[in-house]
Amino acid sequence: MPVQDPAALIQRTIEAIRPVDAAVISRAETRQGRLTKPPGSLGRLEDLAVRIAGITGQERPRLDHRVVIVAAGDHGVTAQGVSAYPSEVTVQMVGNFLAGGAAINVLAAHAGARVRIVDAGVAGETPEHPDLIRLRLAPGTRDITQGPAMSRALAERAVAEGISIFDAERAEGCDVVVPGEMGIGNTTSAAAIIAAATGRPPRAVTGRGTGVDDTRFEMKMRAVERALEVNRPDPTDGLGLLAAVGGFEVGVLAGVYLGAAAARVPAVMDGVISGAAALIAEAITPAVRPYLIASHRSAEPGHAATLEHLRLEPLLDLGMRLGEGSGGALGLSLCVAACRLLDEMATFDEAGVSDSAEAIEPEA
Amino acid sequence: MPVQDPAALIQRTIEAIRPVDAAVISRAETRQGRLTKPPGSLGRLEDLAVRIAGITGQERPRLDHRVVIVAAGDHGVTAQGVSAYPSEVTVQMVGNFLAGGAAINVLAAHAGARVRIVDAGVAGETPEHPDLIRLRLAPGTRDITQGPAMSRALAERAVAEGISIFDAERAEGCDVVVPGEMGIGNTTSAAAIIAAATGRPPRAVTGRGTGVDDTRFEMKMRAVERALEVNRPDPTDGLGLLAAVGGFEVGVLAGVYLGAAAARVPAVMDGVISGAAALIAEAITPAVRPYLIASHRSAEPGHAATLEHLRLEPLLDLGMRLGEGSGGALGLSLCVAACRLLDEMATFDEAGVSDSAEAIEPEA
Repeated sequence: MPVQDPAALIQRTIEAIRPVDAAVISRAETRQGRLTKPPGSLGRLEDLAVRIAGITGQERPRLDHRVVIVAAGDHGVTAQGVSAYPSEVTVQMVGNFLAGGAAINVLAAHAGARVRIVDAGVAGETPEHPDLIRLRLAPGTRDITQGPAMSRALAERAVAEGISIFDAERAEGCDVVVPGEMGIGNTTSAAAIIAAATGRPPRAVTGRGTGVDDTRFEMKMRAVERALEVNRPDPTDGLGLLAAVGGFEVGVLAGVYLGAAAARVPAVMDGVISGAAALIAEAITPAVRPYLIASHRSAEPGHAATLEHLRLEPLLDLGMRLGEGSGGALGLSLCVAACRLLDEMATFDEAGVSDSAEAIEPEA
Repeated sequence: MPVQDPAALIQRTIEAIRPVDAAVISRAETRQGRLTKPPGSLGRLEDLAVRIAGITGQERPRLDHRVVIVAAGDHGVTAQGVSAYPSEVTVQMVGNFLAGGAAINVLAAHAGARVRIVDAGVAGETPEHPDLIRLRLAPGTRDITQGPAMSRALAERAVAEGISIFDAERAEGCDVVVPGEMGIGNTTSAAAIIAAATGRPPRAVTGRGTGVDDTRFEMKMRAVERALEVNRPDPTDGLGLLAAVGGFEVGVLAGVYLGAAAARVPAVMDGVISGAAALIAEAITPAVRPYLIASHRSAEPGHAATLEHLRLEPLLDLGMRLGEGSGGALGLSLCVAACRLLDEMATFDEAGVSDSAEAIEPEA
């Protein structure tokens, strides 16, 4: 059932986003300091758990219910020869997701997360399937080198549907979400979003995506430049930016970020598309930023610019560039580990272990 | 039951270590290239799975049975005021491991690994417990600033017992092992091993361990320098190096590495002590090296030197410096993920997904 009043849902969601809980952060830090380990010896896992405590408002957060939402969409800009793969691969990969054969299926299972697939706007025909949400907002975007990707009304609809999808998952139990995506051509759209949102030159944030050769790479960089010249998006207008050079899957993921922030659920960013969707969400409301966790540094150059713009430091740097939420699922696993440490480790008192240097200072 | 003939067991184990399987590596690479993802898009996870295929001799390795072996030992050098914690913390932490309250308990559970604790040479009295192997080779090492840590016979015994412990785990099912450790004062011993094995200046490879202040840090660096001056260990003689400046837990872990290599089981290194044990194993036989996987870059400076010496690139860099096998357990999880991807993902043919740029070249 489509969202009845997209603008109202987006507005309500923005208004529901609160700052993270400073009092809970302080209590979680105190607990972190009492666990049976030298202070700081768990490195970034310590800060990560404390951040998640602040996000969730729980001193000892448990991330028991984990969801990966993979939104798929096609891109008219593939007409410009920007990808190494034909557009049909998008619908084929949706089939692969539903059959459980894609990387994200394996990595989500490994991280103990369920996977929800969304046909946000795939050109080909997707099947009826219990794990597939068929929004089908349009059969792919229009070619962004010729004009806007979609109408503003459709952009609004995409974001609102993303919120609604998140809310439905939350109702089933969702303590942490990984927004993932699939869409042949979407690294071109993402590069245009990132260039506009961060102010970087288009060529500096455009990568080879699935792995294009030099000829296609040049075509891709020109397509990003043309998309920005033709559309001249306003970087402070998130919905306008999405309508101008975005994608349906990007809009849905932007909505997932907003919904998660409103529900105090940490959202673990994946790579360059997932990051572009976060930029859209952040342009809609900067209040979303503290709810974002950066999983990994993608090999795509635009991702580093995105992370810098969002002031996020990724946990992993494994040279990944697949998308689907794959890096996000690995980062999710680190988030779960960090929270389990904070929750499950014994304190010095509980374990009867001597704490700190002061105990032996006289012997020194 | 103690190992009957330590020298013979070590020799047999060394002779059993074979090179990794190049034919299986080649087959695993071919499969990797047929999975439904752009080539290389899973980054270092792709090489990792292929390496593990070569180690195990299985084209699609499964790491279903995972074991963390945490060896504990005390160090006479603590008399030199090198640690922020008193020696009693070693036996207290053994109690914490057995009660399930330490970081390694949580991280091993998170990685789906069982934990085996070894009292290699703890000064305090450890309890009888089904999860604890009580070798108790001595009540801690002697002070390495005054002479050797242990006799050569005890060094040999520690390594042989490590092999025997690994073999027993292997018999119960062990597809991958994480050697971890606990021992107040053991970053001092590790720094001496690392300086000797890599030829680096002692001060360059000595860190603050559990977190000593400037005064203790200076005492620690002097202790490492004196240990090397007094003992003058031969870096090409692994057992001699262990006897001179090592620890009982370090010797046991060196044996675990040798046993794992002989059994074609990948061993996931943790931080600076686990790395020092790998240097001992590598000095005993360089054939062990291809069986080592580096999980993370510890914040301890000696670890980077160790990784460089062993020509290993770590998977994670999270500023961790706890030991116990904690970083190893996180790296283990990445190894499992990498192998599951290689094994479980659909190929382009199986999924009916179009492969490669060539398919659309005419449209370009």
